[in-house]
Amino acid sequence: MGDFAFDADTRVVARGASGASGASGASGGGEFAAELTRRWDGTNGAVNGGYMLATCLRALAVAMPFPDPIVISGFFLRPGTAGPALIRTSLVRSGRTTAFGEAVLSQQGKETVRATAAFVKLGACGPAFTAGAPPDLPPPAECVGVPVGSFGVATIAERVEFRSASLPGWFLGQPTGRPASEFWMRFTDGREADLYSLPLLVDSTAPSVLELGVTSTTVQLTVHLRAHPAPGWLACRVAARFVSGGYHEEDFEVWDSAGTLVAQSRQLAMILPPSPA
Amino acid sequence: MGDFAFDADTRVVARGASGASGASGASGGGEFAAELTRRWDGTNGAVNGGYMLATCLRALAVAMPFPDPIVISGFFLRPGTAGPALIRTSLVRSGRTTAFGEAVLSQQGKETVRATAAFVKLGACGPAFTAGAPPDLPPPAECVGVPVGSFGVATIAERVEFRSASLPGWFLGQPTGRPASEFWMRFTDGREADLYSLPLLVDSTAPSVLELGVTSTTVQLTVHLRAHPAPGWLACRVAARFVSGGYHEEDFEVWDSAGTLVAQSRQLAMILPPSPA
Repeated sequence: MGDFAFDADTRVVARGASGASGASGASGGGEFAAELTRRWDGTNGAVNGGYMLATCLRALAVAMPFPDPIVISGFFLRPGTAGPALIRTSLVRSGRTTAFGEAVLSQQGKETVRATAAFVKLGACGPAFTAGAPPDLPPPAECVGVPVGSFGVATIAERVEFRSASLPGWFLGQPTGRPASEFWMRFTDGREADLYSLPLLVDSTAPSVLELGVTSTTVQLTVHLRAHPAPGWLACRVAARFVSGGYHEEDFEVWDSAGTLVAQSRQLAMILPPSPA
Repeated sequence: MGDFAFDADTRVVARGASGASGASGASGGGEFAAELTRRWDGTNGAVNGGYMLATCLRALAVAMPFPDPIVISGFFLRPGTAGPALIRTSLVRSGRTTAFGEAVLSQQGKETVRATAAFVKLGACGPAFTAGAPPDLPPPAECVGVPVGSFGVATIAERVEFRSASLPGWFLGQPTGRPASEFWMRFTDGREADLYSLPLLVDSTAPSVLELGVTSTTVQLTVHLRAHPAPGWLACRVAARFVSGGYHEEDFEVWDSAGTLVAQSRQLAMILPPSPA
């Protein structure tokens, strides 16, 4: 899948297995070189957090005894910058049904992201209950998208495509006061979503609080990966429900073309001071 | 506050500062001895995950340059057991507004919990927006609670008190099929909730999926701590919206007596196979 931007830009190269391990004494893990590109910058001009998390996930997968990441939590310590990154992984615990790993992504000797994840073999067992439904959107062909150039320095908008029933208020210069939206999403170059790319996709949109006239930066992001997505457009729902004290949460749901919830994420973000005029 | 069960049972004793630190080269952290008691066991008879997370948080606080935990993510690697625990903490990154730390809780040499947290100084700055409201409950005096003994081995029910408008279906032997509920909550011994005890409280109820006739164990729990709670009863809302493939999420909101959202948590839990008859 090397022809797709996501796969090329999250590639990790093993620098040889390290003997380092977690405090548990679990073995496994290693050091990986990655090259963060300028192709996934967010609205603040920094490398997108979800992109770094997805790169960590690819490094983690190398030593994991189960194929499917089911939950990943990432803390964003510093802004990421385009250029080389070093990812150190450790297999924290390998159990009968679940394995846990940690990844530390550093740039120029400084830790940028710390991520912890659990891996399992996703199945279809047990009871099923859903108290939710995919967003009720017009077909993608009848939806509209913000022109790519509108996102300023946000090159990620060139790689991920969004379509919604109407253009967002912040784009029209009239923030709605309601930090919530529903839209279609897909990779622009035709790459289908999978468990490894969903952590990027749930962090790829403009911050929902733009509808309140402010912007923010992610402190922490937890992503649940609940099912392998079917090919095609993803129907998404994002909302910030609690904005206070200089912080807000943002919840994100991703439903695949078969109507299955495939990912659910929540981030805590810090509201940024207004830019100098 | 040593007279309260929570404070006594989450006490940590420094074993001397360690030179160990995260890959970032940040200094700080240390080793702490804790004694997990049998007073916070969950319905599965294991030490409650939120109790272990709260104990980690107390150890983390020692080296943090900011007073208020705002987000903590914990992965539960093994069941906790009553008895000694060792907590190793590291200050991962100390920035201008935010500090990040990691805690590893081990028992008998095996890692049990890995937790990462961000600390800040909570303020009241910036825009405020709320798309939610506290649960609409009758006053606590008009509500009912499940008799403590009904929770079997769950000693945590002796320490945390719950009251709701009507008794839960699972308790009456008639699971409702709706894994959602609203209720009042407080410590039985009169201890007021604070940022450090909320991670225990959001994990202290019986699993919401009991209303589907199944039970589960927590894999990962993220808690956002959004404001210092006012004294008094806490109004809570819990729901599992997506149960599939042997897993479910559970969302939890905690509102204080002043009507402020003080905590919001989400966990990923694995559904347990039925017990042998």
